[in-house]
Amino acid sequence: MKAVQVVGYDQPLRLTEVPTPEVTGPYDVIVRIGGAGVCRTDLHILEGQWAEKTGVALPYTIGHENAGWVHAIGSAVTNVTEGDKVIVHPLITCGLCRACRFGDDVHCEQSLFPGIDTAGGYAEYLKTSARSVVRIDDSLEPADVAALADAGLTAYHAAAKAARTLRPGDRCVVIGAGGLGHIGIQVLKALTPAELVVVDRNPDAVKLAVSIGADHSVVADGDHVQQVLDLTGGHGAEAVIDFVGEGGATRDGVRMLRRAGDYHVVGYGENIDVPTIDIISAEINFIGNLVGSYNDLCELMVLAAQGRVRLHTSKYPLDRFQDALDDLDAGRIRGRAILTP
Amino acid sequence: MKAVQVVGYDQPLRLTEVPTPEVTGPYDVIVRIGGAGVCRTDLHILEGQWAEKTGVALPYTIGHENAGWVHAIGSAVTNVTEGDKVIVHPLITCGLCRACRFGDDVHCEQSLFPGIDTAGGYAEYLKTSARSVVRIDDSLEPADVAALADAGLTAYHAAAKAARTLRPGDRCVVIGAGGLGHIGIQVLKALTPAELVVVDRNPDAVKLAVSIGADHSVVADGDHVQQVLDLTGGHGAEAVIDFVGEGGATRDGVRMLRRAGDYHVVGYGENIDVPTIDIISAEINFIGNLVGSYNDLCELMVLAAQGRVRLHTSKYPLDRFQDALDDLDAGRIRGRAILTP
Amino acid sequence: MKAVQVVGYDQPLRLTEVPTPEVTGPYDVIVRIGGAGVCRTDLHILEGQWAEKTGVALPYTIGHENAGWVHAIGSAVTNVTEGDKVIVHPLITCGLCRACRFGDDVHCEQSLFPGIDTAGGYAEYLKTSARSVVRIDDSLEPADVAALADAGLTAYHAAAKAARTLRPGDRCVVIGAGGLGHIGIQVLKALTPAELVVVDRNPDAVKLAVSIGADHSVVADGDHVQQVLDLTGGHGAEAVIDFVGEGGATRDGVRMLRRAGDYHVVGYGENIDVPTIDIISAEINFIGNLVGSYNDLCELMVLAAQGRVRLHTSKYPLDRFQDALDDLDAGRIRGRAILTP
Amino acid sequence: MKAVQVVGYDQPLRLTEVPTPEVTGPYDVIVRIGGAGVCRTDLHILEGQWAEKTGVALPYTIGHENAGWVHAIGSAVTNVTEGDKVIVHPLITCGLCRACRFGDDVHCEQSLFPGIDTAGGYAEYLKTSARSVVRIDDSLEPADVAALADAGLTAYHAAAKAARTLRPGDRCVVIGAGGLGHIGIQVLKALTPAELVVVDRNPDAVKLAVSIGADHSVVADGDHVQQVLDLTGGHGAEAVIDFVGEGGATRDGVRMLRRAGDYHVVGYGENIDVPTIDIISAEINFIGNLVGSYNDLCELMVLAAQGRVRLHTSKYPLDRFQDALDDLDAGRIRGRAILTP
Repeated sequence: MKAVQVVGYDQPLRLTEVPTPEVTGPYDVIVRIGGAGVCRTDLHILEGQWAEKTGVALPYTIGHENAGWVHAIGSAVTNVTEGDKVIVHPLITCGLCRACRFGDDVHCEQSLFPGIDTAGGYAEYLKTSARSVVRIDDSLEPADVAALADAGLTAYHAAAKAARTLRPGDRCVVIGAGGLGHIGIQVLKALTPAELVVVDRNPDAVKLAVSIGADHSVVADGDHVQQVLDLTGGHGAEAVIDFVGEGGATRDGVRMLRRAGDYHVVGYGENIDVPTIDIISAEINFIGNLVGSYNDLCELMVLAAQGRVRLHTSKYPLDRFQDALDDLDAGRIRGRAILTP
Repeated sequence: MKAVQVVGYDQPLRLTEVPTPEVTGPYDVIVRIGGAGVCRTDLHILEGQWAEKTGVALPYTIGHENAGWVHAIGSAVTNVTEGDKVIVHPLITCGLCRACRFGDDVHCEQSLFPGIDTAGGYAEYLKTSARSVVRIDDSLEPADVAALADAGLTAYHAAAKAARTLRPGDRCVVIGAGGLGHIGIQVLKALTPAELVVVDRNPDAVKLAVSIGADHSVVADGDHVQQVLDLTGGHGAEAVIDFVGEGGATRDGVRMLRRAGDYHVVGYGENIDVPTIDIISAEINFIGNLVGSYNDLCELMVLAAQGRVRLHTSKYPLDRFQDALDDLDAGRIRGRAILTP
Repeated sequence: MKAVQVVGYDQPLRLTEVPTPEVTGPYDVIVRIGGAGVCRTDLHILEGQWAEKTGVALPYTIGHENAGWVHAIGSAVTNVTEGDKVIVHPLITCGLCRACRFGDDVHCEQSLFPGIDTAGGYAEYLKTSARSVVRIDDSLEPADVAALADAGLTAYHAAAKAARTLRPGDRCVVIGAGGLGHIGIQVLKALTPAELVVVDRNPDAVKLAVSIGADHSVVADGDHVQQVLDLTGGHGAEAVIDFVGEGGATRDGVRMLRRAGDYHVVGYGENIDVPTIDIISAEINFIGNLVGSYNDLCELMVLAAQGRVRLHTSKYPLDRFQDALDDLDAGRIRGRAILTP
Repeated sequence: MKAVQVVGYDQPLRLTEVPTPEVTGPYDVIVRIGGAGVCRTDLHILEGQWAEKTGVALPYTIGHENAGWVHAIGSAVTNVTEGDKVIVHPLITCGLCRACRFGDDVHCEQSLFPGIDTAGGYAEYLKTSARSVVRIDDSLEPADVAALADAGLTAYHAAAKAARTLRPGDRCVVIGAGGLGHIGIQVLKALTPAELVVVDRNPDAVKLAVSIGADHSVVADGDHVQQVLDLTGGHGAEAVIDFVGEGGATRDGVRMLRRAGDYHVVGYGENIDVPTIDIISAEINFIGNLVGSYNDLCELMVLAAQGRVRLHTSKYPLDRFQDALDDLDAGRIRGRAILTP
């Protein structure tokens, strides 16, 4: 089959012919790819940022946001059958460790991450596990939802965690209205009546945020902390979800937080650097957020099927992968680039 | 009555005669002091560290860890009567704001803090509120429990919060086996079957910790992070409660934390300074902890009455307050210094 | 002032002149009534159903769903001032017992219930407490929201409790689309993305339910249990909220519940009568629901101000109270009857 | 191998020779039995009480409380190896359904129950799954812990659920100090500082309860409800755990429950039959409890290894199974009868 592979760091990806994956284990599932999201992480992989961390052997196929149709299944697979339309959870997990047994499968003690440390979905077929495939509604198309498999799932996970403690009258600040923030806002609107205040440097992103449900918008132009305080009665918000995590976002974001509030860390880059006396005297919390669990992905697919979460996509045939990456790198993509068969 | 007052920063406290407080409001409660804890914060007040923050007018009476007997009550007080033996919650709260209405009275929007921003308990009598007095068991003496009113209550609050998510087989690291840690360990033993690993620089403190229930002890001698990892199967602990918060404790403590674990910040001094990528990739949380609520204090008094939480005290008559402060400053106090009538 | 009083059981209410209530305690609040809801409980009071339970001395003024303007306040009241527009929580609570201190003020150990065991709001003025008044948004009128003070608050409390565990893809069955159910459906739509299945004997009520957001409707005509099972993949719903509680509703409702589901009891009349083996083998729960707390009422007023919860009302001047009661008794009220000044 | 089988209802069990189970699936685990608990359910099976419910084909091997050593494993098993000492969770679960993915594996949509609907552990070997085996501490022996696999696990599940909401100063009533209650009391002592009040008809059982940690004991002799009320300040207890569920236990138990309290249903036989008005006016809950999850069993094994949960056992060689059953039926077993190799 055709696959797009990393052949060396700081070298272009290469489209090549590789063996089509086959079922070898009882829980294996082979998915025929209908859409593979093109993610900024893919650019970072090419730059070698993940080389040491994963130790993956080159060449290998990248692509960690995948959806498609079940092509073949192992002998013990009972939850999907051939032809099922599925989205693929980014991790292959063991199902036997304590974390998996509690539903926290992202903390599985021996997981694989296709597209990062084993063969991914920039290809015609992907090998994954019965534990990783979620059937999607008939009304959804793989190429339309593929990017929800990782970026969207991370946003869902953080937004749903925040929503669990938000009540009517509470405020939630969303820092960053880009890819993840865009999904996060839609999820928050579906899960909580809390007022949403969206902060972004880009005036267009802020406008878009309001059009999909944000109650208040603030352009991060230097006066944004004060604006958020003004919008929250001077107290700050019960929750801040930071999808940026760099460029001073965390320093500003903490100042937008109310006493006893939760600061959700999603975006990354800089350090959380806060005096312990401020943490204890306001009794605030910093809550880490990784990608969502399998059950989170099921829930996100429900919201997608209900039309509550939508994502704008730009589609490229698989062999135009380089155009997609170039457009992403140049900031020419609105929403998300998707490779299609 | 006699009272010990701050008359100027960087000046000695002065024992003087002041008017005995009287009931003026419907919820006022006058407490005859049976014991007033001498706290390191009292030294800091004298050094002027709190001057700007509180703006308290001098002279005023210090002492924020108080217990005694109800001497007089306002017209609307129904929860205590004259003669009741009580411990005094450190805050006077409004009872009407949303935080008070949720039981989070430490986040009251208009609280007073006797001993810090109004007259405290280094005196014969203290004026507080019906909302601040907790009746204690007949078996307890005010002078024995006074220090639980603030230091002990803070330790209880953090330990009880941590215990809520700990399960059999989990591990909890306690950093700091001094005043607060000492209470925290006893509280944890009462509330959770999780294994306790206590870390302190002082070998004697570590030994004492084991004698009151710690399962493992580690002297912080440079190799302590590795020792904790060895004790936790290489994974780290599900919770770390940091009663130190300075001298590099947070840097080391984070390395002792398991994936998806909670880092409870109680002690303060340095900054939490952690890369966001570490927070999200391990999905860890930093949980702020202030002093406990009124209900927390009730619960702590139950544990004290059951003999599950004990505190060593050194008692001084009120007019020997300077000896108590000097002994505290010189590190000559074991447990807690208490001023008595 | 004018007041409508119970002068004897099984006798008509009487409009009479009584002394206007005055501030006597520090936390007293006198409210000038803008609207007083007419409730089926008022009919039950007249029939003597509550006589023994409350032991209230006759004559007394009824009316337990009240809203209006603050007319006078006691010396210690800080949360409202004269002229404020307020809705009145149905209970006067102590603020000092453990339940009050946890925010569960409906379980206050020494509460009063104006309109039931002391003077209520079928009058020009009502005496209540600072702990019972919630300021409402400028956009809301007392006569429009009065009925949310008790009936609406009960529905909110149950719906919000259920919503806390519901996730996307879950189903919630609402039994009864009358007064409480009507509010409950609107609250559920605001708080959770779970699918709502509404069951009622009245085809018109069911239609109305769909118009305000129910996803599925079922007329209780004998086949309704099967219909709900069909709508829930044969498994039943994760939650059932039973606003009826009589006429066999509980027997049918339990059959609509999924394994590990929650059955919320709100309406009352018949017994819950279920074999323990069914409770343990399906591991289901029965959750009692009383009226909501003060904080619940604050949250409901947020939803009302946002336009998410609306109530149809029929207004009557105070001296036409008998017409209102007659219309209620005869089933001629759509929504809720309200007495106005 | 030797196995004890049901050959017909109302007929004696028969010791016979059957094929030793073999690994056929990738997650299969064959356990060499070290101990098989003899349970009252086994008597009920012989009486045919489960015949219709399970539809199991005769003959089959009974025994659902099993522990031993891993004898052989399937190709995909990674969590145990041959020779490991294990206790066996009573269910074989799929690991793929939403309940399994949330850690609620007892609600698995396609589970098997060895000893009930497929071959169990009154035998030399048992076939189970990697998802069902928990390694136990070196200090524990299979024959000593086997009875914790089902009876003990049920008690753990209920006690741990109750403990999650109990705080210092709360009271928990345990109804029934027999097999399950005995474990439940030990678990509660390990997990919560709440005061335990144990109620049983048998004075000896009550005495035993006190010896293992119950704070108060009440013999159910007709005056027991009043005694419990006297022990709880007239209010009743925050939680009641009913391990009996028949003979009027539920009627009495509900009267021992405090407002807003939780009634945990574990034992079964009679109906919960309570007026809805009592459920809503006191806002009490009835909480169903099935056997515990796999993770619950891991936690119980931690408590067992720590010596916090102990069980008295009477051991019988496998071929004396009839003596064990006869002794159980005649009430001659103290603690639990265990069949050993």
